[in-house]
Amino acid sequence: MGQQPITFFRQVMALCTYPQLLDDNKFPEDTKSRARRILQSCGGNSIGAYTTSQGIDCVRHDVANYIQRRDGGIPSDPDNIYLTTGASDGIVTILKLLTAGEGRTRTGVMISIPQYPLYSASIAELGAVQVNYYLNEEKCWSLDISELQRSLQAAREHCIPRVLCIINPGNPTGQVQSRQCIEDVIKFAAKENLFLMADEVYQDNVYAEGCEFHSFKKVLFEMGPEYSSKVELASFHSTSKCYMGECGFRGGYMEVINMDPEVKAQLTKLVSVRLCPPAPGQALMDLVVNSPQPGEPSYQTFIKERTAILSALAEKAKLTEEILNTVPGISCNPVQGAMYSFPCIALPERAINAAKAKGQAPDMFYCMKLLEETGICLVPGSGFGQREGTYHFRMTILPPTDKLKILLNKLKEFHQKFTQQYS
Amino acid sequence: MGQQPITFFRQVMALCTYPQLLDDNKFPEDTKSRARRILQSCGGNSIGAYTTSQGIDCVRHDVANYIQRRDGGIPSDPDNIYLTTGASDGIVTILKLLTAGEGRTRTGVMISIPQYPLYSASIAELGAVQVNYYLNEEKCWSLDISELQRSLQAAREHCIPRVLCIINPGNPTGQVQSRQCIEDVIKFAAKENLFLMADEVYQDNVYAEGCEFHSFKKVLFEMGPEYSSKVELASFHSTSKCYMGECGFRGGYMEVINMDPEVKAQLTKLVSVRLCPPAPGQALMDLVVNSPQPGEPSYQTFIKERTAILSALAEKAKLTEEILNTVPGISCNPVQGAMYSFPCIALPERAINAAKAKGQAPDMFYCMKLLEETGICLVPGSGFGQREGTYHFRMTILPPTDKLKILLNKLKEFHQKFTQQYS
Repeated sequence: MGQQPITFFRQVMALCTYPQLLDDNKFPEDTKSRARRILQSCGGNSIGAYTTSQGIDCVRHDVANYIQRRDGGIPSDPDNIYLTTGASDGIVTILKLLTAGEGRTRTGVMISIPQYPLYSASIAELGAVQVNYYLNEEKCWSLDISELQRSLQAAREHCIPRVLCIINPGNPTGQVQSRQCIEDVIKFAAKENLFLMADEVYQDNVYAEGCEFHSFKKVLFEMGPEYSSKVELASFHSTSKCYMGECGFRGGYMEVINMDPEVKAQLTKLVSVRLCPPAPGQALMDLVVNSPQPGEPSYQTFIKERTAILSALAEKAKLTEEILNTVPGISCNPVQGAMYSFPCIALPERAINAAKAKGQAPDMFYCMKLLEETGICLVPGSGFGQREGTYHFRMTILPPTDKLKILLNKLKEFHQKFTQQYS
Repeated sequence: MGQQPITFFRQVMALCTYPQLLDDNKFPEDTKSRARRILQSCGGNSIGAYTTSQGIDCVRHDVANYIQRRDGGIPSDPDNIYLTTGASDGIVTILKLLTAGEGRTRTGVMISIPQYPLYSASIAELGAVQVNYYLNEEKCWSLDISELQRSLQAAREHCIPRVLCIINPGNPTGQVQSRQCIEDVIKFAAKENLFLMADEVYQDNVYAEGCEFHSFKKVLFEMGPEYSSKVELASFHSTSKCYMGECGFRGGYMEVINMDPEVKAQLTKLVSVRLCPPAPGQALMDLVVNSPQPGEPSYQTFIKERTAILSALAEKAKLTEEILNTVPGISCNPVQGAMYSFPCIALPERAINAAKAKGQAPDMFYCMKLLEETGICLVPGSGFGQREGTYHFRMTILPPTDKLKILLNKLKEFHQKFTQQYS
């Protein structure tokens, strides 16, 4: 999508990979000291060695320090940090841990609809039960506790719900949860004895004015010991999103809170089966949570590069919403965070029938036509789940601004033509 | 363990990570052309982008070419190659695929005893049934078809065996299977309709005179269409072993043969849930299967480094066997391949009783004492499985020769002292 890698990240990674470059005076001193520190924490001082299964010690410490800074000083214990192969790996591992054993066929996992399909796929793979709760599209994809309650009650008739998954900021829906809503979710989880999984990989992707990222961990601890001493929580982060965009390295971490020590011992055993997450991804995670500081030689360039990416994302989030909402029959919530818009599209009855005749979901039919006619590839809402009778697509805001404009205008044209054709 | 990385690998990886180095004249031309070729096959020419879930196109082609060269021209189709997060990931994925669904609690997976614990752990995790067949320690850990037959027959009374796993060269047992034995195993799998999983990650680790690595794929195709058109096979390889030793990068691949197209479609879907294997590991896998050629600037250094590591491994394999066999009460088969010895140890009755009183397996008791008294860490045979009443440990041959000698002599001393103490 044209987003350039952050120079600091790649320089340190190159030094870690080929330490002979540490003698090269083209690399700033701070990139060298970071690389040396990471390598000293690796077996045989090599990024090619297995690490411990939970992840490199100094990286887990740096992650804990990052979380503590992010959450206004609320302590984070490196023993609760597990480095992962991207956030997906952590999410699948926790789902596996929580649904394992004889009762798996009756363990319910609550997920939002729309959702990121990793959840539905993993739940199916593990033989657990998917329990849907719907986000409120009318209120900018917010989460209503009454809907959580309805969903839980309905599920209890055929399974034992044990896990509640939240994606904040939302994928595919782009909303940013309010502090109040997070507090309500935590109270709900406490009351209903649910394990909270907070997918917070878009924590740095917040654009809308008045919106702010609140971590579940921080809110939990601010609610006092009544909650912070008992609600079980796993939170996930990654190197793949935001200004980093380093998805190929498969870096990530999770922090687990209030996990029963015996369950945690099983978690440690479970992750050890796959030996360790990729060491380059771990090193990169370290750089993300421990970026250049004022006064360090790489600081100016780092800030310049990061700011440019973040401002462009904010601009593109706004642009996407604005242009899409000029199209009759398309209605788009503000892209408050993450990297996607998920507009609702009105499809004419005849288009719906044409899709059904082809055995396709109506929004899949729409997206295939779009692809054929314009070369634009969007993901139909049916891939994420949506309320019966509504249709959506997910579109990323990542392309460069000028390309995004062209793309949105092509889409606008297509939608008008499509609507005409099937009316 | 002191093994140094191959310069060529790390140079290309550094160039892929930080392409600004492509202008640096310190890097040989062939490392630059490799890096350029890999980057051109990556999204946005970046190793930080997601790759397709099956793996980077040019890497899969290079892997297929490598297999074809290795197997004397027998064709390999890039469509049958899946890049993986280390070999472990591929093995777990295939096990998952083959044991999935309602019947999983009755699907039997045959594994050798002793085995590499990834197998037993994954089978347990997946809720399938572990079916043991014993390797013949008296005949240098060879595989007897009569034992496979016995094991299968016994298993059929309580489960439906569908998969036969083979590790060749052996881990932890270090044997290299003869061509004849592989042929017999393939006939057995064909007759009994078993899916063959060939763990061939040690294919370059063969030391003993008269021993040679034969891939299951090659033998299968040399047996003619009666077998090559029907026996289902998955073979696994990795960047973690041998002269490469790049475990931290989590690179690997698998080749699937004769897989039902609908099952293969499910496999492709299954791997897509985790998005993609780490791109740096994929790039490294490419370099392993496509190493410098005569005439290229990196060739001489590459061969020198590789030969030094391989000769040292061969020397250390021999040394380990020789020294261990001088110890009364230790009996060690030749380390024909892989990276471990797995000697049988005679433990005095009193030691066995002392272990039992502590609730420990006798060889765990032995290994703990060794660790406490000498600082040497070995893995007890009970972690891999062994015939009832026999005791073993696994010891890697990886330490530098001089350290290995000291280590083996310390172990010798300890064993004599331990035997005396408990006699």
